[in-house]
Amino acid sequence: SSTPRCILLALLLLKATSFVCLLQGWVRSARAQKVNVFLHVNDGSSLQSLQVVAGAELNDPLLTFGSAVEVSGILQESPHEKQPLELQADSIRVIGECDPVDFPFKVKKRHGLEYIRQFPHLRCRTNAFSSLLRIRSEATSAIHSYFKDNGFVQIHTPIITSNDCEGAGELFQVEPAGADEHFFSVPAFLTVSGQLHLEATAGAFSKVYTFGPTFRAENSQSRRHLAEFYMVEAEISFTQSMEDLTKVMEDMFRSATEHVLARCVEDVDLFHRHVTPGHRVNSMLKKSFPVITYTEAVDILTRSSEQFAFPSDWGCDLKTEHEKYLVKHCGNVPVFVTDYPYDLKPFYARDNQDGPRHTAAAVDLLVPGVGELCGGSLREERLSVLRARLEQYLDLRRFGSAPHGGFGLGFERYLQCLLGVDNIKDVIPFPRFSRSCLL
Amino acid sequence: SSTPRCILLALLLLKATSFVCLLQGWVRSARAQKVNVFLHVNDGSSLQSLQVVAGAELNDPLLTFGSAVEVSGILQESPHEKQPLELQADSIRVIGECDPVDFPFKVKKRHGLEYIRQFPHLRCRTNAFSSLLRIRSEATSAIHSYFKDNGFVQIHTPIITSNDCEGAGELFQVEPAGADEHFFSVPAFLTVSGQLHLEATAGAFSKVYTFGPTFRAENSQSRRHLAEFYMVEAEISFTQSMEDLTKVMEDMFRSATEHVLARCVEDVDLFHRHVTPGHRVNSMLKKSFPVITYTEAVDILTRSSEQFAFPSDWGCDLKTEHEKYLVKHCGNVPVFVTDYPYDLKPFYARDNQDGPRHTAAAVDLLVPGVGELCGGSLREERLSVLRARLEQYLDLRRFGSAPHGGFGLGFERYLQCLLGVDNIKDVIPFPRFSRSCLL
Repeated sequence: SSTPRCILLALLLLKATSFVCLLQGWVRSARAQKVNVFLHVNDGSSLQSLQVVAGAELNDPLLTFGSAVEVSGILQESPHEKQPLELQADSIRVIGECDPVDFPFKVKKRHGLEYIRQFPHLRCRTNAFSSLLRIRSEATSAIHSYFKDNGFVQIHTPIITSNDCEGAGELFQVEPAGADEHFFSVPAFLTVSGQLHLEATAGAFSKVYTFGPTFRAENSQSRRHLAEFYMVEAEISFTQSMEDLTKVMEDMFRSATEHVLARCVEDVDLFHRHVTPGHRVNSMLKKSFPVITYTEAVDILTRSSEQFAFPSDWGCDLKTEHEKYLVKHCGNVPVFVTDYPYDLKPFYARDNQDGPRHTAAAVDLLVPGVGELCGGSLREERLSVLRARLEQYLDLRRFGSAPHGGFGLGFERYLQCLLGVDNIKDVIPFPRFSRSCLL
Repeated sequence: SSTPRCILLALLLLKATSFVCLLQGWVRSARAQKVNVFLHVNDGSSLQSLQVVAGAELNDPLLTFGSAVEVSGILQESPHEKQPLELQADSIRVIGECDPVDFPFKVKKRHGLEYIRQFPHLRCRTNAFSSLLRIRSEATSAIHSYFKDNGFVQIHTPIITSNDCEGAGELFQVEPAGADEHFFSVPAFLTVSGQLHLEATAGAFSKVYTFGPTFRAENSQSRRHLAEFYMVEAEISFTQSMEDLTKVMEDMFRSATEHVLARCVEDVDLFHRHVTPGHRVNSMLKKSFPVITYTEAVDILTRSSEQFAFPSDWGCDLKTEHEKYLVKHCGNVPVFVTDYPYDLKPFYARDNQDGPRHTAAAVDLLVPGVGELCGGSLREERLSVLRARLEQYLDLRRFGSAPHGGFGLGFERYLQCLLGVDNIKDVIPFPRFSRSCLL
């Protein structure tokens, strides 16, 4: 829906004739002339407002920027080139006033993302953030469609868990306010990953995914960190090679991005024109994504003339600066890096057995502007190789284990990559981070 | 996908001929005869297994119930009436063993829901629970489709909040493990409802919804309570009357249910035949849902000969026993109850002004077997009437307020209503409740 609902309906029905319409929305501009009043009214279904033309007698001092109105009249072809239709009003009713002095956004002013972030309950009333939330909604829907069309079962993996998947530290603990004993009999935490639960269910459905909130108690105010963010995670049984994973990651990225570019033309255009000028995503989709090994990546970094703040020797983890350099080196397109040192990856990553604990079948997808977008691995399905702490994790291998692999994608990072938005707090409706939990 | 992927593919391509197929899945039964071995292999994409026929020389003692196998061979028409196709195997590879003594589920045995609940990491390997999770996935997708097709924007409302929407008590508090000061500078809790955040965004998009986890720290082991459950919540601006809400509730229920009944024929059938025999949902969809007022409901209860444990005088909240009686009274179909006493409903429910604080424009949808499935209300949009504590809540009314309303639906209760499942723990992948947070 990139055109207001009433316009879409009109275009369907209106054939050189005109018809009665009830428009409900918020005033984006009001201009009174001697004979006529002109309003732009927006109902939030798209960036476009509908122009309302009324006789001067319908003018009302309460028709201010931000007020909620109900306009009835005749929808007709507009004499102006820029807009196909306008509403000739019979009646205008202000149903919710909006004091232009108190209202933090001003008519026709382009407020910066940082300014509007101060008003978590109102920023969706701006063009930029309403476009962003429509894009977020479409991208969410596109990702669900991709998995559904490809035979994945969606699993609602739990938010509260009694184990921490990666021994990741940085956990939020959960108890009833003022409790003096554990509500769940054991300590319980907010999830850092649904992987364990996906592995359990992949052992029944072959292909599963989850798309939900994930948490890190990282004490950071940086533009890269949120305490609550969304992850897409998938798990696939009967994998034969790393390509079974990279294919899904690439197809999902392409399919979601093409969907959003096709469905949210005006909203994406607003970002690429005014909010993040110069940012383009089409060029990322032209060729299939290059694949390099970690060892090749380290070679590229070592041979470069760039001054890095962190070491890039074999065995060191890639930092954001390294990831961004690799993306640039490969032509500013998404790049897969595979086969990381065994010791850098968690216990469940599959040993490549190319030497004693040398490399593991793990993969990251690096993208322009962001760095790591997805991380995944083939999982160690061999009971004899796996030394896991969890009895239940071993059970999953004991009873009909199959080669499998999976990955996670940071959904906010995906939106940042799509739109070129610098601060992660600007791509989530209500950001939570250290010292901030507004609304 | 109600047929295994490879069968679907086959039916498309196979025109009186046969072709090579790789089948990956888990053994559901193995039967060796003198000349042949017969396997049923299931890949989790549907309840149906594919029959594999192999020469006795391909038999393997590791071909046990639950083992993971890879079979290649020729897919061909089956001589048996019950199945259209079978796989004539060239090779069978056991890729994951499954010890039938240790594995808690036994071949061809129908285990009860209570028994399988003891194995949260494995119960998706049973017919009943794999059917349930496929239905849950389809119902989720159907609900998203309903809202998308009707112009709603999906909002990821936050999980961690600094306010409790309804002053509900029963909150889980969130802090990093071992923290000695508030991570968010203020006390933070797991959400009990996304309503406040939906109201904020409905003021920009007209129609919004959220579908995600919600939490209650209720110290209960009952079959009706979970600490973590899923809610669908919607908020609609520019409502004119209660019908604007009940229409969306009814349409969503119908559309999701018809979708699931059409797409999950075998899975639903398994429940209605073997798990919850006698339960039917078709009859609920025949007529439009009756609407009665709270006052009429109290009349019905007062005139009934039923002995209730709780009082049902005007002014008392309806208990589950009352709700179930009303549903039965109306012919075992979903029933809307509207216009509850003002004092029973939260501060944001719109005063009907039919007397001083007499009734509020609130509505519940009651359904067979469950009782309350949805609760909603027109919201008090009038700044002068609203006496709210929250400055931000008042801001939403101050700047372009519009008449609006919304509701929430308990997704697990919906699945219980759909399938006739008695215990809420059996309709969620990994249940969390007082003293239990397994896996």
